[in-house]
Amino acid sequence: MPKPLSHKTIEWVGGLDGQVRMIDQTLLPGECRMISCGDVETLWEAIRNLRVRGAPAIGVAAAFGVVLAIRQATTTRMLFEKLTQAYEYLGKCRPTAVNLYWALNRMRQAAESHRDLPLEQLKAFLLAEANAIRDEDAATCRAIGEMGQALIAEGAAVLTHCNAGGLATAEYGTALAVMYAAHERGRRFRVYAGETRPLLQGARLTAWELANAGVDVTVICDSMAGLLMRQGKVDLVVTGADRIARNGDTANKIGTYGLAVLAKAHRIPFYVAAPLSTFDPALPDGTAIPIEERAAEEVSKGFGRVSVPEGVACYNPAFDVTPAELISGIITERGLIRPVNAAGVEEILKIGPCKAKERR
Amino acid sequence: MPKPLSHKTIEWVGGLDGQVRMIDQTLLPGECRMISCGDVETLWEAIRNLRVRGAPAIGVAAAFGVVLAIRQATTTRMLFEKLTQAYEYLGKCRPTAVNLYWALNRMRQAAESHRDLPLEQLKAFLLAEANAIRDEDAATCRAIGEMGQALIAEGAAVLTHCNAGGLATAEYGTALAVMYAAHERGRRFRVYAGETRPLLQGARLTAWELANAGVDVTVICDSMAGLLMRQGKVDLVVTGADRIARNGDTANKIGTYGLAVLAKAHRIPFYVAAPLSTFDPALPDGTAIPIEERAAEEVSKGFGRVSVPEGVACYNPAFDVTPAELISGIITERGLIRPVNAAGVEEILKIGPCKAKERR
Repeated sequence: MPKPLSHKTIEWVGGLDGQVRMIDQTLLPGECRMISCGDVETLWEAIRNLRVRGAPAIGVAAAFGVVLAIRQATTTRMLFEKLTQAYEYLGKCRPTAVNLYWALNRMRQAAESHRDLPLEQLKAFLLAEANAIRDEDAATCRAIGEMGQALIAEGAAVLTHCNAGGLATAEYGTALAVMYAAHERGRRFRVYAGETRPLLQGARLTAWELANAGVDVTVICDSMAGLLMRQGKVDLVVTGADRIARNGDTANKIGTYGLAVLAKAHRIPFYVAAPLSTFDPALPDGTAIPIEERAAEEVSKGFGRVSVPEGVACYNPAFDVTPAELISGIITERGLIRPVNAAGVEEILKIGPCKAKERR
Repeated sequence: MPKPLSHKTIEWVGGLDGQVRMIDQTLLPGECRMISCGDVETLWEAIRNLRVRGAPAIGVAAAFGVVLAIRQATTTRMLFEKLTQAYEYLGKCRPTAVNLYWALNRMRQAAESHRDLPLEQLKAFLLAEANAIRDEDAATCRAIGEMGQALIAEGAAVLTHCNAGGLATAEYGTALAVMYAAHERGRRFRVYAGETRPLLQGARLTAWELANAGVDVTVICDSMAGLLMRQGKVDLVVTGADRIARNGDTANKIGTYGLAVLAKAHRIPFYVAAPLSTFDPALPDGTAIPIEERAAEEVSKGFGRVSVPEGVACYNPAFDVTPAELISGIITERGLIRPVNAAGVEEILKIGPCKAKERR
């Protein structure tokens, strides 16, 4: 699989006294600058301000954040106090992507099941667990690519939205992993990247990744997708996901829902690519997924020039929910969910329909 | 009707040796600067670079452009030569809005039907004709507002796209005239203005106009319209038009088609507001409407900061075509076309179905 990124999106550098190093994605594509976070507050700011973003990458960041939070504990009791604080603190950083809670839960469970270890060993174990989350995410993304690549036929045109690439995960990505795996097989296809207002992750990040990997990519404004579809220029849509409810309803970057409606109107298949950590089986459907609203200034002053008159309100929801019936399939590391419904999700997650309450 | 603009969008100042004065709309909302055009080349640049834009305003500009072109002719023969040159030159400036050709044709017909006048009288007559086109456009827009205002109920939420306001016409606008007329009656309603990438006419111009007029306006990114509709926050959509074919198919700013598909999926009425000069009865449907493609830099460098990596292509069609079946009604100065089909268009235009060929 091509490696479009010369640096890791996010990693832990050094031992327990090390740091979290990441690409500051707010500076791309103009500059690929690495930044380091040595404490949990700095990491929180990096997640909050989208220096690191993308549901799986946020999960990895949160796992490392737990290590930053607990490493100076001088007693096991203090370690668990700090772990609980970090869980609360990081858990409120961004509300929509469930991978963040998934990673925090996994770190907490790892700590609880090893609470009898000597303190320094417990710390080292938690760092190893966080690194494992990162490494597993990379492997998971690679598997998603393999599971989905056959959907992209020779000569196809794929539309994607936002960035569900290597920058949104530990490596490879989710939606883009599918494209990288098809590209690796020598298949030729074209990608249209919706620029993804307000923060332009499609233009800035997806176009950068795909071009670096040698994939043919063209940027469009989000509002151009309808025309492209009507012109017959789109064969399939593939996006990532931030949270998937038990019935397959999928929260993803704002604009995804509109693309799904347009795809259905043009009879174009619409796929979501996501790891199992993006599923939230506690939610029966998408209505309860919290939708983050971000600052108006992201819309009005996004590019160094004021584009909205002083005093005029902007509405800036960061995500929307696409109902399962508009999704042709969900590509996971375990295979494709198709059709998308509760039975399909439960089968992939290997949970029965009665276990819903237990898992909540 | 409220007058949101303290200056005229475009007007002729002085006598035959005067100038065309207009608001440079590329500088809004930061600065409301007036610029003057004393020759046809300067005017061409202003139209081309969207200092003046909007189908009806472009028509007014083209009419004034003819006066700039012919005023120094020293013989009637030279006047007609210059008129023909101006027709060709201005006619190629922007291809989609038919109002430009409509105004050029009207100026040419006015000249031809008065070719026996003494030269200076003919020039003065053409200036009067161009001024009449401007004044009639203002009156037409006011009438459109009156014809459409009842569609906006007390407490309604209206979504609009791009700018079909006073800045897009001589005064009042088309889609926004409907809102101004409802506002004048004391009706309270809310407008969502899609920012309209790439050049942000919705954020920069529509929000500015509506806020100046005291109308409650909120800016959204274009990709947020689907979520708003699903949340039940949109009661109707009203947009302008750049060219309407004989069957009602409507070219308008890129993104309009996608909004129409979304509106239909959510059973939300979708209206177009346009003067009769926007209709092109020579085109049986929208397939032959030329769609302007503009420079990639409008997408990649629109805000003073590069948002697309060097070397990556951008696709930048400026318009799309919404098929008649997605349009609930077309609001004209003569009344509402509903349902939207060839019979309805022919009735409003007072042309019979057999006259199509004659008019071409």
